[in-house]
Amino acid sequence: MNTLLHTADRGDELDRAAWAQRYRRVRDASTDLCAPLAVEDYVIQACEEASPAKWHLAHVSWFFETFILTEYLPGYSEFHPRYRQLFNSYYQQIGEVFPRAARGTLARPTVDEVLRYRAHVDAGMLALLAERADLPWAEILQRLEIGLNHEQQHQELLLTDIKRNFAANPLRPAYRLDLPHPAQRPRAPLEWVSFEGGVYEIGAPALGEHFSYDNETPRHRVYLQPFRLASRLVTNGEFLAFIESGGYSNPALWLADGWTQVRSAGWSAPLYWERIGGEWWHYTLGGMAPLAPDEPVCHVSHYEAAAYAAWAGRRLPTEAEWEVAAATQPVAGNLRETGLLRPTVAPAGAGPAQLYGDVWEHTGSAYLPYPGYHAAEGAIGEYNGKFMCNQMVLRGGSCVTPADHLRATYRNFFYPQERWQFQGFRLAEDAT
Amino acid sequence: MNTLLHTADRGDELDRAAWAQRYRRVRDASTDLCAPLAVEDYVIQACEEASPAKWHLAHVSWFFETFILTEYLPGYSEFHPRYRQLFNSYYQQIGEVFPRAARGTLARPTVDEVLRYRAHVDAGMLALLAERADLPWAEILQRLEIGLNHEQQHQELLLTDIKRNFAANPLRPAYRLDLPHPAQRPRAPLEWVSFEGGVYEIGAPALGEHFSYDNETPRHRVYLQPFRLASRLVTNGEFLAFIESGGYSNPALWLADGWTQVRSAGWSAPLYWERIGGEWWHYTLGGMAPLAPDEPVCHVSHYEAAAYAAWAGRRLPTEAEWEVAAATQPVAGNLRETGLLRPTVAPAGAGPAQLYGDVWEHTGSAYLPYPGYHAAEGAIGEYNGKFMCNQMVLRGGSCVTPADHLRATYRNFFYPQERWQFQGFRLAEDAT
Amino acid sequence: MNTLLHTADRGDELDRAAWAQRYRRVRDASTDLCAPLAVEDYVIQACEEASPAKWHLAHVSWFFETFILTEYLPGYSEFHPRYRQLFNSYYQQIGEVFPRAARGTLARPTVDEVLRYRAHVDAGMLALLAERADLPWAEILQRLEIGLNHEQQHQELLLTDIKRNFAANPLRPAYRLDLPHPAQRPRAPLEWVSFEGGVYEIGAPALGEHFSYDNETPRHRVYLQPFRLASRLVTNGEFLAFIESGGYSNPALWLADGWTQVRSAGWSAPLYWERIGGEWWHYTLGGMAPLAPDEPVCHVSHYEAAAYAAWAGRRLPTEAEWEVAAATQPVAGNLRETGLLRPTVAPAGAGPAQLYGDVWEHTGSAYLPYPGYHAAEGAIGEYNGKFMCNQMVLRGGSCVTPADHLRATYRNFFYPQERWQFQGFRLAEDAT
Amino acid sequence: MNTLLHTADRGDELDRAAWAQRYRRVRDASTDLCAPLAVEDYVIQACEEASPAKWHLAHVSWFFETFILTEYLPGYSEFHPRYRQLFNSYYQQIGEVFPRAARGTLARPTVDEVLRYRAHVDAGMLALLAERADLPWAEILQRLEIGLNHEQQHQELLLTDIKRNFAANPLRPAYRLDLPHPAQRPRAPLEWVSFEGGVYEIGAPALGEHFSYDNETPRHRVYLQPFRLASRLVTNGEFLAFIESGGYSNPALWLADGWTQVRSAGWSAPLYWERIGGEWWHYTLGGMAPLAPDEPVCHVSHYEAAAYAAWAGRRLPTEAEWEVAAATQPVAGNLRETGLLRPTVAPAGAGPAQLYGDVWEHTGSAYLPYPGYHAAEGAIGEYNGKFMCNQMVLRGGSCVTPADHLRATYRNFFYPQERWQFQGFRLAEDAT
Repeated sequence: MNTLLHTADRGDELDRAAWAQRYRRVRDASTDLCAPLAVEDYVIQACEEASPAKWHLAHVSWFFETFILTEYLPGYSEFHPRYRQLFNSYYQQIGEVFPRAARGTLARPTVDEVLRYRAHVDAGMLALLAERADLPWAEILQRLEIGLNHEQQHQELLLTDIKRNFAANPLRPAYRLDLPHPAQRPRAPLEWVSFEGGVYEIGAPALGEHFSYDNETPRHRVYLQPFRLASRLVTNGEFLAFIESGGYSNPALWLADGWTQVRSAGWSAPLYWERIGGEWWHYTLGGMAPLAPDEPVCHVSHYEAAAYAAWAGRRLPTEAEWEVAAATQPVAGNLRETGLLRPTVAPAGAGPAQLYGDVWEHTGSAYLPYPGYHAAEGAIGEYNGKFMCNQMVLRGGSCVTPADHLRATYRNFFYPQERWQFQGFRLAEDAT
Repeated sequence: MNTLLHTADRGDELDRAAWAQRYRRVRDASTDLCAPLAVEDYVIQACEEASPAKWHLAHVSWFFETFILTEYLPGYSEFHPRYRQLFNSYYQQIGEVFPRAARGTLARPTVDEVLRYRAHVDAGMLALLAERADLPWAEILQRLEIGLNHEQQHQELLLTDIKRNFAANPLRPAYRLDLPHPAQRPRAPLEWVSFEGGVYEIGAPALGEHFSYDNETPRHRVYLQPFRLASRLVTNGEFLAFIESGGYSNPALWLADGWTQVRSAGWSAPLYWERIGGEWWHYTLGGMAPLAPDEPVCHVSHYEAAAYAAWAGRRLPTEAEWEVAAATQPVAGNLRETGLLRPTVAPAGAGPAQLYGDVWEHTGSAYLPYPGYHAAEGAIGEYNGKFMCNQMVLRGGSCVTPADHLRATYRNFFYPQERWQFQGFRLAEDAT
Repeated sequence: MNTLLHTADRGDELDRAAWAQRYRRVRDASTDLCAPLAVEDYVIQACEEASPAKWHLAHVSWFFETFILTEYLPGYSEFHPRYRQLFNSYYQQIGEVFPRAARGTLARPTVDEVLRYRAHVDAGMLALLAERADLPWAEILQRLEIGLNHEQQHQELLLTDIKRNFAANPLRPAYRLDLPHPAQRPRAPLEWVSFEGGVYEIGAPALGEHFSYDNETPRHRVYLQPFRLASRLVTNGEFLAFIESGGYSNPALWLADGWTQVRSAGWSAPLYWERIGGEWWHYTLGGMAPLAPDEPVCHVSHYEAAAYAAWAGRRLPTEAEWEVAAATQPVAGNLRETGLLRPTVAPAGAGPAQLYGDVWEHTGSAYLPYPGYHAAEGAIGEYNGKFMCNQMVLRGGSCVTPADHLRATYRNFFYPQERWQFQGFRLAEDAT
Repeated sequence: MNTLLHTADRGDELDRAAWAQRYRRVRDASTDLCAPLAVEDYVIQACEEASPAKWHLAHVSWFFETFILTEYLPGYSEFHPRYRQLFNSYYQQIGEVFPRAARGTLARPTVDEVLRYRAHVDAGMLALLAERADLPWAEILQRLEIGLNHEQQHQELLLTDIKRNFAANPLRPAYRLDLPHPAQRPRAPLEWVSFEGGVYEIGAPALGEHFSYDNETPRHRVYLQPFRLASRLVTNGEFLAFIESGGYSNPALWLADGWTQVRSAGWSAPLYWERIGGEWWHYTLGGMAPLAPDEPVCHVSHYEAAAYAAWAGRRLPTEAEWEVAAATQPVAGNLRETGLLRPTVAPAGAGPAQLYGDVWEHTGSAYLPYPGYHAAEGAIGEYNGKFMCNQMVLRGGSCVTPADHLRATYRNFFYPQERWQFQGFRLAEDAT
């Protein structure tokens, strides 16, 4: 059984024109995000994690070419024989992978050539969707849906990687100077929302009505002890209190590997924070900005989140706790569509706020397979499953996540030392 | 509340003479294990993980000195002022830690001096236990019990580290040439034992009747889906079939980080396996021996266990599944007391065999705090809690674990690439 | 005494208009060399040695700005306050240096901004040269001459770095597709030219008529034993014989550090050589080309040159031997002006051929100060002197060196493992 | 022609009994030096450079076994077949080399076994020397003489490595507590001794009367400019002034690679210096001792010597300058025979003092082959020649060099960052 077949039953009936329209919309969003870039900005890679914009634009096209066009479109010819290797991110079963750390050394293909590659793939995809022939539409549409979600993930990475790459430049250039300013509002007080203990269901059904990645399946039961969840995210001001109390120099607060990381990397504040003339600033996609104490703290690693929680006498929520709380809320918040591209002050109101958007929330859960999980057959099975070791789960999307890409069951995952994503956290505690 | 206070209620009533006797017994076992060593053998450290025997003997004494004698024995004077740093393994709150990787560079203190250090600590401990004064016995006995369990853990490490350090020598010296030969018996067929789904309790009560480490607490509910457990461990012969089918060169079977490890470390077989003249041999504590196909495979990492499971179409059990199966069995098997010091062929019989002893069993569970877990206050709280990230849980003890050190709830943990412990695995599968 | 004052006596009399013309000519040559580049090509850095083209264009301007304009041009304002750090290559006395290995991470300033920076500096320099005021012309012209030679050095680096950066791309793009083809001619036979032993003078006078770098001074006596020099460079075909006889796998031929390098880097041929379908090709600035056996071998390190010499039963010449032979010849050969941008077959004729041009020739001499050498005061004294350790001397220029930049006394220097420059060698032997 | 045949003509006539006596004397000295060691002290290796004492004792025996006994003694059987690899230091032509950095991981062979190995080799060597048969004595005695000098070199390394290994232990154990105290005497004033320029002869004749290593040959002419040499070594007090003036934080004084080293290694004083309670102490073979300002500075690298010289406005002498000055003096001074095992205050008197003994003197000369140098054929040719790259020459022996091992032409060599030998320096300057 192929657990990726979420769209299987819907394939034949679908209006392929609607799929073509959705395809165009998603694809256009990628190039739109790059509009503010100079040609040079597309090329660079300041560290292994932060791929060049040019690479993202090509890789997402490679995904459609490799998993759909070369398999299903009769007569399709690859744009360039070397791209199969050049833009393969990590699919070992496809063949050799160009080293991730060296993506920023490739001047060619140029931006123009990459855009021509995109046009070539787009022409192929739209031709395919216009095909009347007897094609395995269930399979194709399933892969198409993965491909579109995949491209949306890379849209988020485009922004996080541009931020990372720009911030490494002593000139601290802005991605956009015309970003809107977030609304000013008073900080909501921190409250604790209680949840009953008992058996809950989490995860997505393997053959659900809506799309989900294989790592969200199957839907299954878990037993939760009673717990309480903070009503909002931890703020810059709160995190600053942790720093000022010596948090970064007190080993008693840190996981052992976290303490090793703090010392070897010389961490003393979240990524992008800078102390200039006695004041804290931080780099944003709009350039350097004074630190706003009531905004959620962002760009902290799992280690820093866990150390803060230890300092505060609380803990991080598990992913199941988070999902139980989020499952009853609509997917809404400070997501990419607000255009702010930075986390903002929590709104007042009942129930846990900011579950969706603002920042991906660190959880205390390791990224592991759900009971009953099976990766798909073939190279596409490498999408999620093989990363289920050494990483931690984050939940809820961020200010650079498209709203229609998100859901309560969505599992994101990063290594505990990583912090270049829009990552923050909320606290939890045992209810007993 | 101090979750380490498992012995708290029993403190006052205990016959301290019995504790003294137990203390002597555990302490003697450490030096007995070292009896086959030449002086030079005590000094070396072939890799960061494998500490010198001399260091183990000193460090376990340091534990009693630091956490008991300097705090509770009036007038106790430290054996040497520098040992506080020299034999501190990782307790950041105690002060500076001598670098772990450099333990093998210390010729001094000599073995004789270390033995004198042990005698000094023993005299102090026995004097303390003979004290009539109004001491906080609950606290002391609780720490004593941790100290004795701690020393037993290091007895196991003594053997695994001696093995690691000797195996790195091209001369492949034996630890002992007089080890008994395991009984010959036919291999048991592989069967699958079924378990119902539902809510189970696992873990140890925080204030239980018997000792357990804080990381086993609190006892709590979990929901398990129905599952099946293999009736015995995976054997050398079965693992050889994985190797011969190209297991170490097929990335589709491996976790991403595992594949990186395989290639960077050049792995092509378990640790200690050597191909000599067309035959497979492996290094044992008794020296080089031909590989016995029906014995459990040993010295494989989590990555290798997971790759084998993927190849076999199965998975590793979770720690909860393992504990549910083991909880109803007595702690018995091929443990240190058999004197074999190597895993042996599974006995025939009903129910899962080999749950205790032979090899620590890899699970699919990350080492994380149980719901409601709290580390102890102070430096002794660094014992377990700060390692709850990036490591995986192993269960069941091995052929070098003392029987009275083990229980069903015992959680051992190692990094997924480590393999110098006596580590093997059994398979599991979903029952649906 | 300032040993850099080679132009001191000529300063006042010089026609500054002639200097301005020379300045414009040298500066234009830099941008001309970049004409074939796409914008993306200016940005990348495939390894620490190979700086981005954009960086070279900015750094040479920084040199004029830092050492001349900010010191001597009244009212000059820096183009950008951050460039002082951003484009400082290694002058510790100027202040913080942006890490060399990270030059390829800087998208900004863009190419256009760098060209504006160049224009700003050019305007300043030409304004300075037009000044009538009572300026310290001897000092200024001395620095100007260094600055122009400095820019010529970077013109050579532009080409070697473009080659290195392009070659790292699996697409192997060409720098120029319109490069002329070298003339076909028969390979000259290898002959040995004899030189007498005795006292010779080498080096440049500290206050000479013509420009030279401080590291070429002072002119001084050396005693040479009688020696013989090969009449031409070692060829690809000859080096191939070394490879085919197992040269890269025979430790007896290698310097100890060279053998370590061969094994750790996995070397089995010169840089840029590739075996494709049973034939040897190599990457050139014109793209991939079949290896021509009679052309000089190029892109070999000192280690490889020394191993070849050991294999051939000869040795490398010392720099003094080379200079004695070259001093009587005009500076002419396959230099940048031929436009070939690759080494070519040696011409027939008497005397050692190819001393100038084609490839920088490895010598057996470590890069050390000449007797009586003194570095200049201040930051400009860091130009050469501080590198006089761990590097080896190369002589004679290459096919990418401008002819008017070269002379018999010119000392180039690289680490013995480096090979991305146009580096080859000729053999020598003792005459006794 | 074999340049190592320095003893060739004397072979037949020699009284082999005298050679046997010399052999015994040199061999005994090695074990005598180890007499103060505990068994544990023989095993450790605190860093790659500092081999275990046990390894030295075995390796020098391996040299006789490999290069003499297995080739010339009929019926000789190797002590252990694995020792060929285990105790091969770097002779690639002999076969696989056990990794140098892992020598401290070998508990076996034990010290007793190594001593039995020595006895086995000694028995073989003495049997060989007692042989009447028609053996190639010229060859054998030549190798014997190299072997004895080789063992003397390792006697020096025994002491430097014991010092290095003991100093790494926080307990700072002494090698010997009974070392004599150096005589107190006033510091000699620093004077400058002048030497004429002109053609000199340096080096040893290839077939000389006395033994020398191949790297000292052939004797040859060099041209020296007039120079002056300091009358004594630089002292601790003088070096302290360099430190106190900020020498370790001023990049203008350092070679580029030296500055990189200072920052990456965090150097701020010579090796073994420690600031305790506001006073400078240093570790000696007799344990920790207060720094004596008039004693020669010791355990400084080439980089530090060069930086000091730049700070003092002087330079290091070349090896030829040093040899010209030393050639007229007898080999006498504070060598191993004084038993002090540490450098002492310079005696007053005419001419340069302390040329022999106290500390190896850094020179400004790279370790390169002399004109006309040829390494010997076969594995023994790897003794010196293959290291002629990246290292610098030191001259004159130290307080741990046996007097009969030294001569004016002796060339020692180390990497410019190394400082665990007894290394110091004197200044020189141009006489013009």
